[in-house]
Amino acid sequence: MNIGFIGLGHMGNPMARNLLKHRHTLKVFDVMPDLMKALTDLGASHTTSASKCAEDVDVVITMLPSSPHVRSVYLRDGVLSGAAAGTLLIDCSTIDPHTARDVAFEALAKKFNMVDAPVSGGTGGAEAGTLTFMVGGDMADFEKAKPILECMGKNIVHCGGAGNGQVAKICNNMMLAIEMIATAEGMALAAKLGMDPKVFAGIANTSSGRCWSSDTYNPFPGVIDSAPASRGYSGGFGSDLMLKDLTLVTEAAKSAKQPVMLGAAAQQLYQLHSSNGHGGLDFSSIIKLYKKD
Amino acid sequence: MNIGFIGLGHMGNPMARNLLKHRHTLKVFDVMPDLMKALTDLGASHTTSASKCAEDVDVVITMLPSSPHVRSVYLRDGVLSGAAAGTLLIDCSTIDPHTARDVAFEALAKKFNMVDAPVSGGTGGAEAGTLTFMVGGDMADFEKAKPILECMGKNIVHCGGAGNGQVAKICNNMMLAIEMIATAEGMALAAKLGMDPKVFAGIANTSSGRCWSSDTYNPFPGVIDSAPASRGYSGGFGSDLMLKDLTLVTEAAKSAKQPVMLGAAAQQLYQLHSSNGHGGLDFSSIIKLYKKD
Amino acid sequence: MNIGFIGLGHMGNPMARNLLKHRHTLKVFDVMPDLMKALTDLGASHTTSASKCAEDVDVVITMLPSSPHVRSVYLRDGVLSGAAAGTLLIDCSTIDPHTARDVAFEALAKKFNMVDAPVSGGTGGAEAGTLTFMVGGDMADFEKAKPILECMGKNIVHCGGAGNGQVAKICNNMMLAIEMIATAEGMALAAKLGMDPKVFAGIANTSSGRCWSSDTYNPFPGVIDSAPASRGYSGGFGSDLMLKDLTLVTEAAKSAKQPVMLGAAAQQLYQLHSSNGHGGLDFSSIIKLYKKD
Amino acid sequence: MNIGFIGLGHMGNPMARNLLKHRHTLKVFDVMPDLMKALTDLGASHTTSASKCAEDVDVVITMLPSSPHVRSVYLRDGVLSGAAAGTLLIDCSTIDPHTARDVAFEALAKKFNMVDAPVSGGTGGAEAGTLTFMVGGDMADFEKAKPILECMGKNIVHCGGAGNGQVAKICNNMMLAIEMIATAEGMALAAKLGMDPKVFAGIANTSSGRCWSSDTYNPFPGVIDSAPASRGYSGGFGSDLMLKDLTLVTEAAKSAKQPVMLGAAAQQLYQLHSSNGHGGLDFSSIIKLYKKD
Repeated sequence: MNIGFIGLGHMGNPMARNLLKHRHTLKVFDVMPDLMKALTDLGASHTTSASKCAEDVDVVITMLPSSPHVRSVYLRDGVLSGAAAGTLLIDCSTIDPHTARDVAFEALAKKFNMVDAPVSGGTGGAEAGTLTFMVGGDMADFEKAKPILECMGKNIVHCGGAGNGQVAKICNNMMLAIEMIATAEGMALAAKLGMDPKVFAGIANTSSGRCWSSDTYNPFPGVIDSAPASRGYSGGFGSDLMLKDLTLVTEAAKSAKQPVMLGAAAQQLYQLHSSNGHGGLDFSSIIKLYKKD
Repeated sequence: MNIGFIGLGHMGNPMARNLLKHRHTLKVFDVMPDLMKALTDLGASHTTSASKCAEDVDVVITMLPSSPHVRSVYLRDGVLSGAAAGTLLIDCSTIDPHTARDVAFEALAKKFNMVDAPVSGGTGGAEAGTLTFMVGGDMADFEKAKPILECMGKNIVHCGGAGNGQVAKICNNMMLAIEMIATAEGMALAAKLGMDPKVFAGIANTSSGRCWSSDTYNPFPGVIDSAPASRGYSGGFGSDLMLKDLTLVTEAAKSAKQPVMLGAAAQQLYQLHSSNGHGGLDFSSIIKLYKKD
Repeated sequence: MNIGFIGLGHMGNPMARNLLKHRHTLKVFDVMPDLMKALTDLGASHTTSASKCAEDVDVVITMLPSSPHVRSVYLRDGVLSGAAAGTLLIDCSTIDPHTARDVAFEALAKKFNMVDAPVSGGTGGAEAGTLTFMVGGDMADFEKAKPILECMGKNIVHCGGAGNGQVAKICNNMMLAIEMIATAEGMALAAKLGMDPKVFAGIANTSSGRCWSSDTYNPFPGVIDSAPASRGYSGGFGSDLMLKDLTLVTEAAKSAKQPVMLGAAAQQLYQLHSSNGHGGLDFSSIIKLYKKD
Repeated sequence: MNIGFIGLGHMGNPMARNLLKHRHTLKVFDVMPDLMKALTDLGASHTTSASKCAEDVDVVITMLPSSPHVRSVYLRDGVLSGAAAGTLLIDCSTIDPHTARDVAFEALAKKFNMVDAPVSGGTGGAEAGTLTFMVGGDMADFEKAKPILECMGKNIVHCGGAGNGQVAKICNNMMLAIEMIATAEGMALAAKLGMDPKVFAGIANTSSGRCWSSDTYNPFPGVIDSAPASRGYSGGFGSDLMLKDLTLVTEAAKSAKQPVMLGAAAQQLYQLHSSNGHGGLDFSSIIKLYKKD
């Protein structure tokens, strides 16, 4: 299939490479020309604008850093003006649901089919082609997008209409952030009160306190060998990326006039953690607020 | 075996009955004589004080409402003066670890063997004999207590030395409370932003946001048929009981000079929920702060 | 002086009337034509667009509900295209400092002099001409704006360069919101612990706990006769308006990567209060979270 | 007058010295004999127990570090057994209102007159004899205590019945702590957003955001020359002392089943600040959470 791919950062690069591996024909675009080189070396053709990248393809995929970028690339720089009516548009950026719905609405008005399809799984999942895609849009468009997304991920979930991919992503990540802090507080307190951290984790993980952050990604060093906590919080999902998602979700909550008391507290704690200089560490390093090394 | 059982409230009553079912010989005591009747009808003998209840038995089990009660029953009213040296003492109350260690220390000084063994599983688990016991104390004492606890529960976990049963219980429940609120906030926000709650729960539960509160005990009505949320938040584990545990754990954190930012926020939110008149509902009803009926 | 006034809501209307009282010549514009009638009845001339309202005047004053409105009225609907170079532009809206600086920057590039001048004092102060104006912009522009602002207010403060009027307004209001909640918590707790609220207020107000919310605008009914608390929380500064300012300030903090832990908590508590149906009551009614009637 | 003074720490020492200056006859006691030496050098007589210190005096004054000490000194070590009926008992310790009322109740039962009279003003106020005393107890006892307290302070306030001195003290200090953090967040944000801190403080202090923490004790260095912020946060009222008061007040709130959302958050933030190693600095140093040096 002919695919235009826009946005070749840490996530976009391995995603585009996986499309090439599945023998799709790729045109790429990024505002930083250097980022295109790695893909053209592998057989993609480069273009000089988002609009050009969207011409004469069956599918356009975008992977951009924020809502204003998405708005700009689709509405101003011209995916919607460059692409032919009927082109399937897949936005994999994590942005606020409101913007996702605005852009989808304008795309629909111009006879495009569009889905929002934010991912989870990090750069590791992008490399391995094991990302999860949370997809918002019509069922028919979801069905069309699915085989393409399966070149890059292994878990493709339909979340309902336009914008719902974003809703699922940011609400899940809000829960994740709060649960990670809950685990950090529980582990640090149990240790301070004299319990062996591994014993406590074992109990919580077979009891009502268990969560992904405690049983799979425990923030206490030495509890889970494969977790970032056991290698100095390197790799993984950066604290500043979590902060970005928490900022998105608390914004969305404000617009929806919905209280999220612990979500807002989590956003603040990650801001504090970032201000302390730890934004580049895996998000489980939030335990540093609670446990001095 | 000859067992003295002290404290016959909602939890103590079914626990004592399970001991009778396993053909243990029971002496019982409660400050409210009426509570003893239900057990003496089933074959237990009644006594007139904690001290008397502790005489001439192999094991003393206590199930009391708070730290001052435990201190009083063991140190003043006299389990330690009534019982013969060598008697195994099992305190199943949920209290602060500091008190648990104080009492165990005095028991040890008088040549008793003592374990703290708080439970989780609620009155349902007590009736069914499926409680979890988190046990703090010497391994030898744990081994002695285990067959007796197995008459009342199915999961008997050794948590380390004296007081560690309490540490495990309250730290687990702090994580649980925060994760329940996280789930309530995530579910309510996803719904407010236009997603089907069941679809969102399905996604979170196969992703990094999953926790016991989302996949087993979801607070959003209709998502899990067997959860209290689907029957008006009746039954289950009461909000005021969760508030009591949060009060214990935040106290323990203060004594240990350990920050628990979200734990303290959870304690406050459950206090607010209780002040709103919902203390008697299952603790998953905290979602009422976020979702108007 | 010839003045164009844009935005005639609850605040704009009395502000414009005070300018007429001081014998300024007024052109007015509002997207809702009805709102202009009250002013044209008093001698103002009406116009059909923001751009037209800005033509042939010495000064343009705007009083708009949010950042997008300000952006639109100045940059798209055309104050900057309608007005002659050299016209003094005064924006009295409360918006985020970032937008204020963007618009001021574009105004400067087109040879306009612009100040941001958000107000405090509410509709009461607007009627009485006793508003406080917090003004951001060059000292020379501040001096030019001052005599005009003095027709509408009594306290005209220079806060530094462009956008600083907004910074002063929203940072002050964040402090105010937190201090109001502090007062509500302190008053409600003192009363619950058995103290006479008036006696406690008297002590706090002569001690280190004093603040404007406790000594001038106390949220406990009956403590200060002239405060909204003593008349059912009617009048005053609405909770939803405080929520709007808290939303602005927490946004600004996020953009600046600055933690505001209690500010974010205050934003959430006002959101909860609003969700409880009290958004229309004076912001001191936040005490309803702490004290049942 | 003959006075027995028990508890000669940093506060008790200068308070006792001021009583000697006013030519009262003093007997003193402290569990650390060295602390008595400074007073006996000045003419006080030393005693060997709290009970003995309370014999044959008109008034007993206690200044102790915590609730258990007060309980012990009055009820176990024997002020109530040593003193003659009718002796006036004045407890200047800051403790929880519940303990204060318990001890007062037992004193009353034994025909003593007792008031609780916690202080504010710090060691500086104790040295200078300018403390504020918040007094709980009968008006008649307050009148008797007043001339004695006036030897040590300049502001003697009657707060109502037994325990109300403690209520006033801890509720005021909870408001103070929250307002200090509010000021720290507002000042740090205004500065980060580009405003001169002194200019912002000047505006807030003449507006609705003003409070004692902003206009008298501003936490931003250089804003108020005489404040601890302008001398490296030395002297003043230590963060760990504020943490102690916040712990007391959140305890009292829990017992009273009263939510104090920001009070609990303030307790946590001071705990975090203390864990960061700043417990010995003045409590305005909490701004270090928000502003890197």
